[in-house]
Amino acid sequence: MSVTTPRGFVAAGLAVGIKGGGALDCAYVGSADAEPRAAAAVFTRSDTPAAPVLVSRTHLVRSQGWIRGVLLTSGNANAATGQEGLEAASRLLARVAELLGGEACDYLIAQTGLIGVPFPTATALDGLEALPKALDGGAEGAARAARAIMTTDSHPKTALAVGEGFTVAGIAKGAAMIAPSMATMLAVITTDAAVSPQRLSEGLAAAVEVSFNRITIDGCMSTNDTVVALASRQGASPGHDFEVALTAVAQDLARQIVGDAEGGSRLGVIDVVEALDEAEALAVARRIAESLLVKASLLGGDPYWGRVLAEVGAAQRGVDPRGVSIWYQDFLVCRGGEDARRGWTPQEHERLAAAMREREVRIRVAIGRGDAAARILTSDLGPGYLEENRRTS
Amino acid sequence: MSVTTPRGFVAAGLAVGIKGGGALDCAYVGSADAEPRAAAAVFTRSDTPAAPVLVSRTHLVRSQGWIRGVLLTSGNANAATGQEGLEAASRLLARVAELLGGEACDYLIAQTGLIGVPFPTATALDGLEALPKALDGGAEGAARAARAIMTTDSHPKTALAVGEGFTVAGIAKGAAMIAPSMATMLAVITTDAAVSPQRLSEGLAAAVEVSFNRITIDGCMSTNDTVVALASRQGASPGHDFEVALTAVAQDLARQIVGDAEGGSRLGVIDVVEALDEAEALAVARRIAESLLVKASLLGGDPYWGRVLAEVGAAQRGVDPRGVSIWYQDFLVCRGGEDARRGWTPQEHERLAAAMREREVRIRVAIGRGDAAARILTSDLGPGYLEENRRTS
Repeated sequence: MSVTTPRGFVAAGLAVGIKGGGALDCAYVGSADAEPRAAAAVFTRSDTPAAPVLVSRTHLVRSQGWIRGVLLTSGNANAATGQEGLEAASRLLARVAELLGGEACDYLIAQTGLIGVPFPTATALDGLEALPKALDGGAEGAARAARAIMTTDSHPKTALAVGEGFTVAGIAKGAAMIAPSMATMLAVITTDAAVSPQRLSEGLAAAVEVSFNRITIDGCMSTNDTVVALASRQGASPGHDFEVALTAVAQDLARQIVGDAEGGSRLGVIDVVEALDEAEALAVARRIAESLLVKASLLGGDPYWGRVLAEVGAAQRGVDPRGVSIWYQDFLVCRGGEDARRGWTPQEHERLAAAMREREVRIRVAIGRGDAAARILTSDLGPGYLEENRRTS
Repeated sequence: MSVTTPRGFVAAGLAVGIKGGGALDCAYVGSADAEPRAAAAVFTRSDTPAAPVLVSRTHLVRSQGWIRGVLLTSGNANAATGQEGLEAASRLLARVAELLGGEACDYLIAQTGLIGVPFPTATALDGLEALPKALDGGAEGAARAARAIMTTDSHPKTALAVGEGFTVAGIAKGAAMIAPSMATMLAVITTDAAVSPQRLSEGLAAAVEVSFNRITIDGCMSTNDTVVALASRQGASPGHDFEVALTAVAQDLARQIVGDAEGGSRLGVIDVVEALDEAEALAVARRIAESLLVKASLLGGDPYWGRVLAEVGAAQRGVDPRGVSIWYQDFLVCRGGEDARRGWTPQEHERLAAAMREREVRIRVAIGRGDAAARILTSDLGPGYLEENRRTS
């Protein structure tokens, strides 16, 4: 299952010694034969991207979108490591090429872990020797790959969508909150749909925009965020259902990432409707989703709509509070910018309180300006986030 | 001392029953005689301002900048309370005018507390009867006023600056983090300098920009933030040292507010230097100051500069990491975007670790682009913030 379900892929998960103690810390997903795959990638927009991001960008351009596979490591982000870090990433891919064929620029690399710590290149190069034997086109290799990219995730994240004559599959590691600075999001998506690098690239960009770019855990942008898509083209030449399937897989993975934010316990689904345009809806939804006070209320299961209204105001989009309504779990709690619960019976209050104890809390905000809408997924903020992020060691 | 130190002012702190249990919840600072004072105010930029903000804005315009005094209440923000809330704020000031003379529009009002809860107008109006007798031109009234505006503050906040023939004094309540949703910042500044409403207004706007607008605790903008300045004009006609003193008082109060952020234990002083212009320096400094990961590291006293560099990149100002240096407590920890501590002796590491245990942590970031600089004060984020903000009751 997962990334080896589409035809033409192998995967592996191994321990190359970055984390130490025999822990899985290296994954590979790539072509099952000597042929490169149509490839596309979306990287962090940070001005201080990590070495693997810089190297992968170059390789993707040089290979003109035809890539044999992607190597992923966890435990050290190889970020803020300067020239030495660039050399480390390049040497890892040169070794992969020696082992699996082709040139270094036929491969991409994604890494996650601590920032600013020199990468243990020699150790990892030694560990890579086991890669060829670990490659597997069945469920085992894919499962091990999904586990090897985990850092603070409590479980592997995989997704699958089936189209007319093709499949799309993916694995991801989350911006889970629990361990120090492991906030990077990595994902690899495979498909056997017969699509060109350009179509894959456009489809991936659009899918990322409505999935990984619509979630927030702590509002921090990583130096290493990377999403790679590979297409073996061994299946059907798809219609529009390819973009639908690609988006579904990305959204499924993104939702799993927020749901696994370990400092917290609740998933918040923030819908802003009646905005002038989508950009406005997104700006307001993001403001609400990233609010520490809203996240604290989510932690407590408290339907404190006043904080949501305050964030609508703080977004400074010119919203008139008299036109604002807010629902928690489909209960209208604020109408016209005022409390809609006056006159509620104790039973009604108790029904809302019970609904707030659910794992997923939906907050819907109508801002009375137009027809546009947007959704952002968020998590609550728990003490575990602070406890685990306060020290790197 | 404090707001009654400048000539021509009285102050009071009383319990009007908003909080209940006899707790101080109402302050007044105003003219010691029947004459109005030159007045200026800066309000929240939120699109959903509370009723007292709307009422005060109107009164300031109607009175053309001549105000007798300002009433401040705590325990209920009178925000998201609609028409009823506007009437509550207006009735409170109408009663003050009946008790102290003049018209309602000769007074301003500032309120802080829970959002979206109807204001207990009748109770507060009854309590206000005690105001005339409570007025005091000495230290006692000022001290009680400073205490009455506290919500989650652990101590009253007062500041004083002395100029050539005039004084400037202030009281403030903080955006302390401990109790539910009490994140509003209120301040009243008095002076006996002979300045016009216009000069006071321009000076206050400039002072607020480099004081209250350069602090961040949780990044949340309140519906109620208000800073009022009153000038009795009974002292000297000042030179530029008036603006200097006004700024000093505002900065002193702002620093006390961040220092008293109760969910945390550390003050972070974020300096960004070598920016192209001040706006760029501010944008980068704010990004660092509001980062949950940086705040978590401050909590732990961990000099994890990688997170700071990541925020420089996430600010997306086009900074080249190879030109970035970072100091913690004057220790250079990152140079050229890489770890500057390689080769440090254990003693050097221990000296930095000891310095990180101080109450105040200075993070200085040089971004290698120009000559502009900016400073933002921040606090760490402690479990107490979450514990106290998760439920309103």
